[in-house]
Amino acid sequence: MCELLAMSANVPTDICFSFSGLMQRGGNTGPHKDGWGITFYEGKGCRSFKDPLPSAHSPIATLVTEYPIKSEAVICHIRQANSGEICLENTHPFTRQMWGKNWTYAHNGQLKDFSNELPVKYHIPIGTTDSEHAFCWILDQLHSKFAQQQPADDVLFSFVAQLCERIHQLGVFNLLVSDGDCVFAFCSTKLHWITRRAPFGEASLIDAEMVVDFQQVTTDKDVVTVIATQPLTDDETWHKMQPGQWQLFRLGESIAQGQTQAISPAPSSV
Amino acid sequence: MCELLAMSANVPTDICFSFSGLMQRGGNTGPHKDGWGITFYEGKGCRSFKDPLPSAHSPIATLVTEYPIKSEAVICHIRQANSGEICLENTHPFTRQMWGKNWTYAHNGQLKDFSNELPVKYHIPIGTTDSEHAFCWILDQLHSKFAQQQPADDVLFSFVAQLCERIHQLGVFNLLVSDGDCVFAFCSTKLHWITRRAPFGEASLIDAEMVVDFQQVTTDKDVVTVIATQPLTDDETWHKMQPGQWQLFRLGESIAQGQTQAISPAPSSV
Repeated sequence: MCELLAMSANVPTDICFSFSGLMQRGGNTGPHKDGWGITFYEGKGCRSFKDPLPSAHSPIATLVTEYPIKSEAVICHIRQANSGEICLENTHPFTRQMWGKNWTYAHNGQLKDFSNELPVKYHIPIGTTDSEHAFCWILDQLHSKFAQQQPADDVLFSFVAQLCERIHQLGVFNLLVSDGDCVFAFCSTKLHWITRRAPFGEASLIDAEMVVDFQQVTTDKDVVTVIATQPLTDDETWHKMQPGQWQLFRLGESIAQGQTQAISPAPSSV
Repeated sequence: MCELLAMSANVPTDICFSFSGLMQRGGNTGPHKDGWGITFYEGKGCRSFKDPLPSAHSPIATLVTEYPIKSEAVICHIRQANSGEICLENTHPFTRQMWGKNWTYAHNGQLKDFSNELPVKYHIPIGTTDSEHAFCWILDQLHSKFAQQQPADDVLFSFVAQLCERIHQLGVFNLLVSDGDCVFAFCSTKLHWITRRAPFGEASLIDAEMVVDFQQVTTDKDVVTVIATQPLTDDETWHKMQPGQWQLFRLGESIAQGQTQAISPAPSSV
């Protein structure tokens, strides 16, 4: 399995603190040593840093922790490969353009028989992972449903949740996806989130000796949500998502949520 | 105008030497201070490093010079903005997926009336540059001409050259494009290339105090072609491309070339 991390904020915010914890799980405090990637949105543009090396030993990961890129939406993934070899084209997040926007996607889990069950036509996978294949299928479905025009966020992401429910029938499908404005999370088995706002306090990372006093680096108006597979701090209260539950965030706030019929798959396939 | 740089090689090769020279032109030895980007192919995957900051002062550019990423195809661009504001979505190279491959593109020049003359339907620009718009138009044209199947390289890139000839009628259009296997270059006004092979010698950068002895870092079988707006070294002989000329490289070798009817536009529009 892999580790997911995302951020949604109402002001450009750096994710150095959270990423400093997560990167340790890539070959140090965790076994997710098969590459990592992070995508930062800045306006309509985005940039990704990726490495097939373990994040705990990657010079590029070190740069990301030391060079504070400020963003309102971030998607990050560290990989423990279970489908597709370890190489750059199989490294998340995946980004594709649709409706004049960058769409970025990362997946934790494993899907059975995905190439038969999720046929693709327009968006063709480049690598060999179940994850990228499912992303291409989602984009194809959106293209078929809504054609050339992006619908309103609630319409769009309710439909994405239905697609997740279908994919979840093939296995574990914890998902993060963003168009740069919204960040959508679907929980198949495991996903947590926290919204930080005034009054801000201190927080300590679980995976590294690091404490931050958010009050020193924020204003009273800042709202920042972080989503992760497992909580990254041990002195804050994270929301635990339930199997089949989805959440939509925009500018740091939870703006919609729902519960699909998807239930957690049997433990043997987790 | 901007500066272009590309590499095609028959073994994974780092471009640290050439990039060390080029990055100085982004705010130090040259005026191209409006952002920069570089895309490395590794197998079917690729990764880009981009910054809207001047390359001469960018910590990410410093990482690229110090962390030797080995690649068989590279596309790089440093920007002097003339169309579209300075921001990440307007920063080259641009990468899009087609036919299950990553296509990467960078442009030097300026095009008039591009949104009317180059209508797009499927590949929609994200930023506001003439460059990205022309790239989307090229992909739309390829999609219309060849549908779901990538044709043979000679058929494909001869057609790309015809498209370049049309775009060139709108202004200056020096182009680099790659699908990870081939690197295609079209000269509208200014482009140079050099192929290095055994016996390798020394070379000195024009833009930085740096000399490399290629014999120390190569084998007898290595073949490496570098393409750039202007020669990067002052003690080697670079081929100067002519207006309307195109070149196709694969694994370091020139595998096809041609001359379109395109002639250099009047100096006033350069």
